[in-house]
Amino acid sequence: MRKKRSYPLSKVYGLLEPGPVVLVTTANAAGHNIMTMSWQTMLDFEPPLLACVISNRNHSFETLKKTRECVINIPTVELANQVVGCGNTSGDKVDKFLRFGLTAVAASRVKAPLIDECHANLECRIADSRMVNKYNLFILEVLQAWIDPAQKDPRTMHHRGKGAFMVAGETIKLPSRMK
Amino acid sequence: MRKKRSYPLSKVYGLLEPGPVVLVTTANAAGHNIMTMSWQTMLDFEPPLLACVISNRNHSFETLKKTRECVINIPTVELANQVVGCGNTSGDKVDKFLRFGLTAVAASRVKAPLIDECHANLECRIADSRMVNKYNLFILEVLQAWIDPAQKDPRTMHHRGKGAFMVAGETIKLPSRMK
Repeated sequence: MRKKRSYPLSKVYGLLEPGPVVLVTTANAAGHNIMTMSWQTMLDFEPPLLACVISNRNHSFETLKKTRECVINIPTVELANQVVGCGNTSGDKVDKFLRFGLTAVAASRVKAPLIDECHANLECRIADSRMVNKYNLFILEVLQAWIDPAQKDPRTMHHRGKGAFMVAGETIKLPSRMK
Repeated sequence: MRKKRSYPLSKVYGLLEPGPVVLVTTANAAGHNIMTMSWQTMLDFEPPLLACVISNRNHSFETLKKTRECVINIPTVELANQVVGCGNTSGDKVDKFLRFGLTAVAASRVKAPLIDECHANLECRIADSRMVNKYNLFILEVLQAWIDPAQKDPRTMHHRGKGAFMVAGETIKLPSRMK
């Protein structure tokens, strides 16, 4: 198991703002599930709020709606096959942790598990579900964030559609006053 | 002026899903404005719907609320200085087109201008403003999309916070059944 470090909530936006594909984990009495997601945005800095779309055709939709909790796990390109595998299969047929060799680790604030192999994990609770019926849009608050200090230069994946992924390139620094 | 091509609305999600920083243009009787934005997500494929956060501290907020129209322009790293410049200045003090040497081109469906130098332009109209008061969250429908066919491998910018930008790297193709 990796040694994850608690990550400041005030810095969480910097993990999601670049637009990575993420893996959403949920848990209920029947077990765990993993879903690949790419439609999310930050909504506020601190406490970190985000909005994300989880289609009601996904197995995770009902679990999230009922338990009101999930973990957003941020994978790097080393997990490309798992990301696509989780996107191509349904949790009502497959135990995705088992099938794709991923490790479920207990979270601290929610029942959904962390994916150990991901470089960051965000434990979330639904803050507002009023847009779920119309847009499948969940507003989540991040309660606790974790980071793997061993992954120095995490090359995240960014979905361009139909299985094409842009892999994070170099980072440049500009004299910005943006937060 | 660049020769832009009309781009299929069904493919618009592939431009925004990777999470690029964008430049939002608005127009009112007082003139044009440009705003740098990074908090947006797709909401639906076709017609393309997106959700974006524009803070009420921004000059563009009131214009968008009143005119209900804007253009989302997607810049590449060649425009890095303009992206940061637009983020560091306010439209109530500066004509950003003039200051940053950007070219305003008439759009076809909205009054807000296209930024000619950007590799893609999405003409948008507000589809739902019910989340504006609580979250500064606008739901936009893309009415018309344009792309610059001369820019073959657009290296978009992805904000990591405080002026650090990840520049789009290589694209990999995986056997995904994801749309």
